[in-house]
Amino acid sequence: MFTSSATGYSINGQKHTLVQRNIKQLHEQVKEGNFLALARGITIVENELSGYHDLLLGLHRNRHARVIGITGPPGAGKSTLVNALIRYWLTENKKIAVLAVDPSSPFNYGALLGDRIRMSEFYTHPNIFIRSLATRGALGGLNAKMIEITDLVKEAPFDLVLVETVGVGQSEIEIAGLADCTVVTLVPEAGDEVQTLKAGIMEIANIFVVNKADRDGAEALFRNLRIMAHEKAAGADETPVIKTIATGDEGVGELATAIVTFLDAQENLPEKRLHLLADKCWQLIQAQRMKDIDHNRLRTELAEAVKQDNFNLYAFVNHFLGN
Amino acid sequence: MFTSSATGYSINGQKHTLVQRNIKQLHEQVKEGNFLALARGITIVENELSGYHDLLLGLHRNRHARVIGITGPPGAGKSTLVNALIRYWLTENKKIAVLAVDPSSPFNYGALLGDRIRMSEFYTHPNIFIRSLATRGALGGLNAKMIEITDLVKEAPFDLVLVETVGVGQSEIEIAGLADCTVVTLVPEAGDEVQTLKAGIMEIANIFVVNKADRDGAEALFRNLRIMAHEKAAGADETPVIKTIATGDEGVGELATAIVTFLDAQENLPEKRLHLLADKCWQLIQAQRMKDIDHNRLRTELAEAVKQDNFNLYAFVNHFLGN
Repeated sequence: MFTSSATGYSINGQKHTLVQRNIKQLHEQVKEGNFLALARGITIVENELSGYHDLLLGLHRNRHARVIGITGPPGAGKSTLVNALIRYWLTENKKIAVLAVDPSSPFNYGALLGDRIRMSEFYTHPNIFIRSLATRGALGGLNAKMIEITDLVKEAPFDLVLVETVGVGQSEIEIAGLADCTVVTLVPEAGDEVQTLKAGIMEIANIFVVNKADRDGAEALFRNLRIMAHEKAAGADETPVIKTIATGDEGVGELATAIVTFLDAQENLPEKRLHLLADKCWQLIQAQRMKDIDHNRLRTELAEAVKQDNFNLYAFVNHFLGN
Repeated sequence: MFTSSATGYSINGQKHTLVQRNIKQLHEQVKEGNFLALARGITIVENELSGYHDLLLGLHRNRHARVIGITGPPGAGKSTLVNALIRYWLTENKKIAVLAVDPSSPFNYGALLGDRIRMSEFYTHPNIFIRSLATRGALGGLNAKMIEITDLVKEAPFDLVLVETVGVGQSEIEIAGLADCTVVTLVPEAGDEVQTLKAGIMEIANIFVVNKADRDGAEALFRNLRIMAHEKAAGADETPVIKTIATGDEGVGELATAIVTFLDAQENLPEKRLHLLADKCWQLIQAQRMKDIDHNRLRTELAEAVKQDNFNLYAFVNHFLGN
């Protein structure tokens, strides 16, 4: 049935000792904060090149770097907000990595170009590492890959890892399993009520941001979020709602403080961290086990199969899996 | 690695011929509309009792029965709406099955009792089959099970299969892959704006219902949904928004008509149906392949493993999978 690529994170025999030595060296360089080594490491993980398993199996736990997810709908100003947060944290001499998941870029180079345009201000700053990731991944695969890449990035001596994802459906929910703190960014455009309709993701927010807070409708959106945060809290701590104008750095200090406050409180919640970690494991296992399922092939074969008069979905699944 | 329960919908050797014969008989009875046989069949599928695989592999495609998903937050009056729809369709002499997914019932008997209270009006009607299903399923498992059960129910000579799910996060999104038409039910309570915040599910609605339309805020909710439906449509057909007072049967005829109109239009969209069917396959495969993963064991072993100083998530996954 299926044995091929589902063998897990195993090291395949002795012949890989040379690869292993190189990977070990790469890992050491990453730990020293070598950005070139980190970039190469990410490419290895992203494309599952030679040394991929060894690299992941060699990771330690960096108890230092903390992961902040920045999510929200397209046009919410997430990149501008990330820029403003970097600017703020640089005054505290923080070392920061930014991972941007850009669904509009089918190729890495496209994504890289996107970075240059959007993040030019810090692209060559020695304390800032920026990397875009294409979302080529099949169903459910992106998140497992992001878990792996984020774990690698955490090996480097960063204080904070910012993961920016465009909020399109599922991926926002998945970010919650990846990040120590999830910031959901919204804007008052398109009418406050219509805007909020997009927000099934609300459940996963640790902090809400009302960006472009000088625009019409910002106050109404802010109020609605506050009401919702209050209802959701039911007596416990309410999810903070923070107004920002990222282009003018307004409210960014308040946001940075809220993030750090949340992260510090998190340290004392081992139960929640365990829950997130178990969720990570589940997703890694799921991605591994579905890796050999080609969605295009599934669709093509299914399109043929349904034409048969005696089509049976379960027999098709069996046949497709080669049972 | 993993071979045990992941062998798919296979028939295990010759010794099961007696079971197979019984299952074949059960299947014939289901096709004739025998409710007792159907109830037993559902129990077999739900609990994967002896004959489970044979039953599924024997299913044909009933091109007749169409599946309508009724979803929405708790308290939206979904059960009352289902009752009202049944009452309406009974005047047209329709045969209807109702599957209710009740997350509050850990056991079937609890769910059954819930039925009796909520659905008593039609519980003994010869044209109506009602079954509650407990949501014991592990992560992602419920939907695969619902796909299987719904496929079985479709073998019986029903005109319509109503699947009622309480809208809690993921499950609403999953219903869209199961149903030929998804009705999202909302109520104007708790302030129209706060209410709509729950609705990341909006994407999957084929029809919106504003139930309890005589209450304060109904008009505002109705208007907001109309605006959103208009924006989403972008020139194409807009998702209908229908006001109902299910307790008084108001608007129910209009809703029934909208559902049938939508279903009839669907018949001409083989591409969309193929997409949904491919999604079903994906979920069935995923559930099959994750079946041997015990989430509690994962959590327990992980809680121990993270205490180690040299904890590595990927090595843990390997170890957990027995690699």
